[in-house]
Amino acid sequence: MPSRGKTLTKTSINPNVLNVEYAVRGGIPAVAAKYQDELDKGKKLAFDSIVWTNIGNPQQLPNLAQPPLSFWRQVAALTEYPSLLDSPKETRDALFPIDAQQRAQELLKAFGSVGAYTGSKGVALIRQHVAEFVEERDGYPEDIENIYLSTGASGGILTLFQTFFRPGQDAILIPIPQYPLYSAAVSLYDLTAAHYQLDPNKNWEASLDSVHDSLRKARKEGKTPRAIVVINPGNPTGSCMSRAEIEAIIKIAYEEELVIFADEVYQRNVYQSEHPFISFRKVLLDFGNSSKEDERKISETVELVSSHSISKGFSGECGRRGGYYQLTNIDSDVEAQVNKLVSVSLCPPVQGQIGVDMLVKPPKEGEPSYELYAKEVDEIRSTLEHRSDLIAKRLDSLDGIHIRPAMGALYLFPQLHLSKKAWDQAKADNKKVDELYCLELLDKTGICVVPGAGFGEEPVQLEDGSCHAYFRTTMLAKATDEFVDRFVDFHKGFMERY
Amino acid sequence: MPSRGKTLTKTSINPNVLNVEYAVRGGIPAVAAKYQDELDKGKKLAFDSIVWTNIGNPQQLPNLAQPPLSFWRQVAALTEYPSLLDSPKETRDALFPIDAQQRAQELLKAFGSVGAYTGSKGVALIRQHVAEFVEERDGYPEDIENIYLSTGASGGILTLFQTFFRPGQDAILIPIPQYPLYSAAVSLYDLTAAHYQLDPNKNWEASLDSVHDSLRKARKEGKTPRAIVVINPGNPTGSCMSRAEIEAIIKIAYEEELVIFADEVYQRNVYQSEHPFISFRKVLLDFGNSSKEDERKISETVELVSSHSISKGFSGECGRRGGYYQLTNIDSDVEAQVNKLVSVSLCPPVQGQIGVDMLVKPPKEGEPSYELYAKEVDEIRSTLEHRSDLIAKRLDSLDGIHIRPAMGALYLFPQLHLSKKAWDQAKADNKKVDELYCLELLDKTGICVVPGAGFGEEPVQLEDGSCHAYFRTTMLAKATDEFVDRFVDFHKGFMERY
Repeated sequence: MPSRGKTLTKTSINPNVLNVEYAVRGGIPAVAAKYQDELDKGKKLAFDSIVWTNIGNPQQLPNLAQPPLSFWRQVAALTEYPSLLDSPKETRDALFPIDAQQRAQELLKAFGSVGAYTGSKGVALIRQHVAEFVEERDGYPEDIENIYLSTGASGGILTLFQTFFRPGQDAILIPIPQYPLYSAAVSLYDLTAAHYQLDPNKNWEASLDSVHDSLRKARKEGKTPRAIVVINPGNPTGSCMSRAEIEAIIKIAYEEELVIFADEVYQRNVYQSEHPFISFRKVLLDFGNSSKEDERKISETVELVSSHSISKGFSGECGRRGGYYQLTNIDSDVEAQVNKLVSVSLCPPVQGQIGVDMLVKPPKEGEPSYELYAKEVDEIRSTLEHRSDLIAKRLDSLDGIHIRPAMGALYLFPQLHLSKKAWDQAKADNKKVDELYCLELLDKTGICVVPGAGFGEEPVQLEDGSCHAYFRTTMLAKATDEFVDRFVDFHKGFMERY
Repeated sequence: MPSRGKTLTKTSINPNVLNVEYAVRGGIPAVAAKYQDELDKGKKLAFDSIVWTNIGNPQQLPNLAQPPLSFWRQVAALTEYPSLLDSPKETRDALFPIDAQQRAQELLKAFGSVGAYTGSKGVALIRQHVAEFVEERDGYPEDIENIYLSTGASGGILTLFQTFFRPGQDAILIPIPQYPLYSAAVSLYDLTAAHYQLDPNKNWEASLDSVHDSLRKARKEGKTPRAIVVINPGNPTGSCMSRAEIEAIIKIAYEEELVIFADEVYQRNVYQSEHPFISFRKVLLDFGNSSKEDERKISETVELVSSHSISKGFSGECGRRGGYYQLTNIDSDVEAQVNKLVSVSLCPPVQGQIGVDMLVKPPKEGEPSYELYAKEVDEIRSTLEHRSDLIAKRLDSLDGIHIRPAMGALYLFPQLHLSKKAWDQAKADNKKVDELYCLELLDKTGICVVPGAGFGEEPVQLEDGSCHAYFRTTMLAKATDEFVDRFVDFHKGFMERY
């Protein structure tokens, strides 16, 4: 027998995987995890706890920005252990409101057991409830066959990128800054990222010039632009798109033959009444009411994928991995391929599906659980608004940081203005200046944020040698005052050092 | 604005997806779903219910071959709604055994909330319990860093195929017959399937000659064979591999530089004490005790992926989407790439992870839940054995069907011997003969099984014009006598017609 080494080495595996980057869990969060481990083992560091603000994980301890909604968990527990529904009436009524018991029974009737595979698209009853939800939201009815439940929103987006686009050939328009799921999917499936810029001086509105530039560039390189990704409300930007902006993007998609991927997972996370959430589907279908024939044609033609999730909003139920996507104007042969591909993974997690049911059909006024539900949602909403405003105001008051309160989503994306000395130091350390800043922040305070470059927003040196850079922090940190105090002290020290 | 059609059409999407086939949910099961829908709407058919035996879904109604294990569901309910742990002691003790309460508390302490993202590899405590489980099973310790929790076993296998293998370049050895997840993964990731044959006349043992033939053929076509898939106990074959067979495959993997993918999801589903389950990992590590240096080298070199699932065994908890994979001898740089890729999907569903904890750490003798747990497991075991034996004996007694009781897994894979007339009729209908048989079975009885060709086992015409063909049925059908009666009547009629 001849001797041999490993079959799999870094240079002999899928090169597309090597190209994937995912900053919200890589780089600096990995260093933070090491520190957490050291703290757990009793080591003394410059801080006594890590403040995890690198990822939108609302139920993470010790932040617990969003305690679970009671109604959700009551229904989940009853579907897990239906014997509870058979306990003496006095016992079960003391533990569970009647409407939670009824919902659990309705769901159990629809799928039998949370331990059985459901249909690959998800439980029909739950998809029916999604259709009713989007009808009420947008004013247009929906066929349940256009609704697919998914393993979080991410699971659905990955499936569709894989189904729709041709490796080595297609280009996808991705906003900069962006949530890195999209650049990761592009690398993984051997597609080309065609970046377009969001303008920090215009509330992070999409620069249409940059969309056109990017389309030209991709075509010049022999790639076929096939889709445009939009994230509304924005991650990491925290901005909400106006109707005019949405209309402009839909028109470009029509003219340039692009599918729209509308990531709308933060649609409930909106904080300013003058900037409401408007769905892409509504604006697209509204074109159908236009007096102009070519605009009516848009509403029947432009292919749209709308994603939603139980991980954000007021539920923040990340761990269940639930979400859905809705297909508008997708060719039925193509939809059949999606249907086939999802069948290979059998079905989305059933507790994630149940979560979608709660998301789209919460307790209504007059129902036994409504009062508590409304109170819990109000508390979460005011907690998030308060934390966002406090962080934004205190950081914005500092020299060298500019940030406005978020219109939506769970993030703040402050702009740093740093000195030439900082830029040069980063260069000498073979780092980017945002990475230098975020690493020092972590080392000195235990606060874990993600550099702007992780979202594609690279630091830029200005004419005078100073520079602009960004970082993203969630608005979920618990002891917000103390968190901001730590942050403010650090920033002042950093500005003094550099 | 110029007029335009769809951006996405069947001829302009990812061609690899078009090539994916997944028979256990496509083809005949799709026809069955149509009939189910018609029955639900009150239409009269030749039967009054569909008998779903196309997929191993033990908790599916109305079969319910495996009611959920109480301990599992008690712990799940408590983790979903921890307020139950704060209910008056008398109430909670009446509803939940103490050890279920303790387990829920231990798990909640480990991950905080089922609604929070866990680490991408899964909760460390649960991976620790997996390591202890495999140590007890195999007699060798394990590092928890080699254990990844996954979204069912399928989720893990798809992730690893994508990470390890080079599109357009690598070939994967797949048994025929096989579970179609593997051929689907090969198509999806643009790999080449190199088939090797399991021998129906030798209890479906792997033909080593056919492994070598297939390796030669793949190399001649310019592909690089990189891995061999084994399914033990077998799906669809229901066979268990002997130690000698496992040793032979490990040696081939060493010599031919192949990674072994050992699909061991049916490891608890074994029915004959003379054919026990033996893990690939145990046999691989046993080579380390050999007196021969080259055999010791094998145990340190051959790369092995071992998969396990909560969907099968005695739990049958398919809908939670839980499982794990264990990496042996994988290069650390490659493992880092796996770790990065799983982080893009954030984490496996937390209730699936909790299921893995129950799977690897069930109630022990002396603990309050043990007696009920043991009783429930015994009932499931005897139900499965009874159903398997009854179906096998009655079908085997018929002319034109040969089948022995399964050694393991959840399936029977009978061989049909059909006439030239049947073969010719199928040809005239532009079908395969197994498809003809299974479609007529469905049309006349409502029984939904999957043709052998769906597992890669094609019908073969014999010299006299008659033919051999296969189908797979699960052993999960509820009214087994009535199910077999329907089947027997159909088969006799089919043999008369053809």
